[in-house]
Amino acid sequence: MLRRGRRELLFSLDAWRRHHSRFQHCRVARTKRLLQSQFFQPMNFREDTVPALQGKLSELTCKSQQLMLQAGLIYPSSPGCYSYLPYTVRAMEKLIRLIDKEMQAIGGQKINMPSLCSAELWRVSERWDLMASELFRLRDRHNKAYCLGPTHEEVITDLIASQGTLSYKQFPLLLYQVTRKFRDEPKPRFGLLRSREFYMKDMYTFDVSEEAAHHTYNAVCDAYCHLLSRLGLQFVKVQASTGNIGGQMSHEFQLPAEIGEDRLLVCSGCQFSANVEAVNPGQTLCPACQGKLAETKGIEIGHTFYLGTKYSSSFNAAYSNAQNQPVLAEMGCYGLGVTRMLAAAIEVLSTEDSIRWPGLIAPYQVCFIPPKKGSKEESATALVEALYDDITEATPQLKGDMLLDDRSHFSIGKRLKDAKRLGYPYVIVAGKRVLDTPSQFEVWCQNTGEVVFLSREGVMGLLNEMQAA
Amino acid sequence: MLRRGRRELLFSLDAWRRHHSRFQHCRVARTKRLLQSQFFQPMNFREDTVPALQGKLSELTCKSQQLMLQAGLIYPSSPGCYSYLPYTVRAMEKLIRLIDKEMQAIGGQKINMPSLCSAELWRVSERWDLMASELFRLRDRHNKAYCLGPTHEEVITDLIASQGTLSYKQFPLLLYQVTRKFRDEPKPRFGLLRSREFYMKDMYTFDVSEEAAHHTYNAVCDAYCHLLSRLGLQFVKVQASTGNIGGQMSHEFQLPAEIGEDRLLVCSGCQFSANVEAVNPGQTLCPACQGKLAETKGIEIGHTFYLGTKYSSSFNAAYSNAQNQPVLAEMGCYGLGVTRMLAAAIEVLSTEDSIRWPGLIAPYQVCFIPPKKGSKEESATALVEALYDDITEATPQLKGDMLLDDRSHFSIGKRLKDAKRLGYPYVIVAGKRVLDTPSQFEVWCQNTGEVVFLSREGVMGLLNEMQAA
Repeated sequence: MLRRGRRELLFSLDAWRRHHSRFQHCRVARTKRLLQSQFFQPMNFREDTVPALQGKLSELTCKSQQLMLQAGLIYPSSPGCYSYLPYTVRAMEKLIRLIDKEMQAIGGQKINMPSLCSAELWRVSERWDLMASELFRLRDRHNKAYCLGPTHEEVITDLIASQGTLSYKQFPLLLYQVTRKFRDEPKPRFGLLRSREFYMKDMYTFDVSEEAAHHTYNAVCDAYCHLLSRLGLQFVKVQASTGNIGGQMSHEFQLPAEIGEDRLLVCSGCQFSANVEAVNPGQTLCPACQGKLAETKGIEIGHTFYLGTKYSSSFNAAYSNAQNQPVLAEMGCYGLGVTRMLAAAIEVLSTEDSIRWPGLIAPYQVCFIPPKKGSKEESATALVEALYDDITEATPQLKGDMLLDDRSHFSIGKRLKDAKRLGYPYVIVAGKRVLDTPSQFEVWCQNTGEVVFLSREGVMGLLNEMQAA
Repeated sequence: MLRRGRRELLFSLDAWRRHHSRFQHCRVARTKRLLQSQFFQPMNFREDTVPALQGKLSELTCKSQQLMLQAGLIYPSSPGCYSYLPYTVRAMEKLIRLIDKEMQAIGGQKINMPSLCSAELWRVSERWDLMASELFRLRDRHNKAYCLGPTHEEVITDLIASQGTLSYKQFPLLLYQVTRKFRDEPKPRFGLLRSREFYMKDMYTFDVSEEAAHHTYNAVCDAYCHLLSRLGLQFVKVQASTGNIGGQMSHEFQLPAEIGEDRLLVCSGCQFSANVEAVNPGQTLCPACQGKLAETKGIEIGHTFYLGTKYSSSFNAAYSNAQNQPVLAEMGCYGLGVTRMLAAAIEVLSTEDSIRWPGLIAPYQVCFIPPKKGSKEESATALVEALYDDITEATPQLKGDMLLDDRSHFSIGKRLKDAKRLGYPYVIVAGKRVLDTPSQFEVWCQNTGEVVFLSREGVMGLLNEMQAA
């Protein structure tokens, strides 16, 4: 065993690093300010609609799809398959980080399972035939059959079973992933609300008893509630049918919306609410309090299932208890539509011509609009740039989240309209009153539709407080 | 236009948030310390090998695959398709964040394209037939044909072309994604080094001239060099053939390794190096200086192509120049194997029985091993826990990156062996000298194989300095 002092150790590690490196080039200068003109944003250099969308716009079926296509957030590649453009990817990554935090706060561990799921596994659960036309199926060069995973109960249960008998001490296990899923929808529609390729967070849990499994089930539901609350989304948690996933108990998390494809029954007298699929046909009275049930529509964004031993018995996923006896694990599974949540949030929060994002996942928080080139106010351009730089320094959390709309050949009005379409929570405009002493900036708060005039210090204070809130 | 003061505005935003929320539950307590016993880590509760691997271990073909399987980092689902377990996902996410930084530093914008790529698009480029057996192909319920994208030149060029004629002012465009790719390898092998499903970063660039495209090409190559240097990986950039991607110039980024599947020729006299596929058969002298070429083997982890107008002409992806004339865009494409890099780094850095990660992407940075239950040193357990807590507070960057191996029914030796297998850069052990006054901790530096004894303050200082380095 080699023994050395701390200094020598640091030195030797440094030498090890140098040995393993061939750093031999000059860097490209890093852009300091984010400039709208440099973004791949189809709206940037045109006043008209994107030509290729003309035909497709007539088939639009809901607000979020229309807004997202018009603002250049998504682009259809084939039916129900979309390319997500830069703003959408930013929002999605922010949403995934929030989901990670919630899942990890209750002990979730992140894994990543393959999309190619072998037919053998799906035959064990009998879902290979059950999910007949919804599965995308294919064969490899050796003629082995696969489906593209729409969900992963089979793969995860096989994974747990393959570890041999785990000790009860390792339970509960809460494993989740955020990956692309596939479903051959008969009628993909509503943009990211019902597509054939989509991102989903799916968690699978393993417990030692029914009681423990219920505890875990409630913890995951609570985490979903917490997440939706943080996003500022009004939701209903309803009793649901278990469909082809199976199991003994199930809930859906629904955002009430006109275009929702689920019909929900909500009791005004008590807490009861359910998907119509989960109650007797024609039921109009609440089974709990006999109050009247009102029908509403919702967009399903989350679905939780208590599975019992449905899958663990098929795959023999067992743990050994304190007496060293093998016992089947009690399972749960929990889906959350990631790309669907993005669209659903836009659907329920936005106005007809302006996107409103939940503040926490807006692609960018602040957009600065300096004066138009050649206008009376043009001299104030430097003021706006200085304000941008000062805020970057004073509120580092906003770094990378603010942009300058430098397309100064466009009027302020045109750029403000673009900014509303894209849904920056705050838009700081250098309008006429920027020439006042001291300068007054026009601050647009998209999510409330309000406008205030604030001095340089006022803007800095507002953004600082909002970040800390 | 409504006008209000800043206070009122904040208040009204707050009310808006509350209106949109139904926060109605109690949180599950957040775990403060990360405990090894609570991880889904197959090595945790056994001294033997995972039973299901017994058969598979005999077919192992390289060090990284063996190490990753044994340590429970990956689990084979079907040939060439792996589930990535929690440690691997952590390393992969760290690597992706580094890649994002490098790509965004040169102006890269992140997008996300579908896996289902329509046959029509691939027929335009003629690659539907050209890539005959490598493509996974399938048909949807309407009998429309798709392949699972191994790369996305077709989709991105179609996307750009569909935007109508973009202005030259928007160029260069550097668009990239980090997504799962598919390739029906005849012989998937070497674990994540040659799999059928894998994560790849692929960037596509669009420029207004050949000269501008070369500039962009060099910027991306420089970013690759910078990334590999930061990771401490020795690499060679070699001239390469363009294969079925096409184009006029190409380079590969190779990690020299015995099990590498590429044969490289490196000139000792000058900077020349090339893949054997890129030179005349039987060539033994350097074309630049006539020096002797030495052959070595490499693992390809990156590949860059200058494509010219090969794809932009097929799809008519044009921009309008300053004279308002349409001109075909000059393209480049740039791949970087994400999961392959993880395995390749382990392959070239590790010893036969211990994983060594590049420090920046190690799943966890520090593992603490408190004394065994019932040992003379057991009373020092609280000391180790306090040290863990103090470091969490003093070096917040390490928060979430340190864990406590609380499996105190195992000996220190067994746990140290596990820690080495998993490759924590630093292992802090409470051995015999923890009873000295003051306590001495044994600090193992995995990447150099060194051990030092340090006091509590010494450990804190070391970790603080290493983080800042």
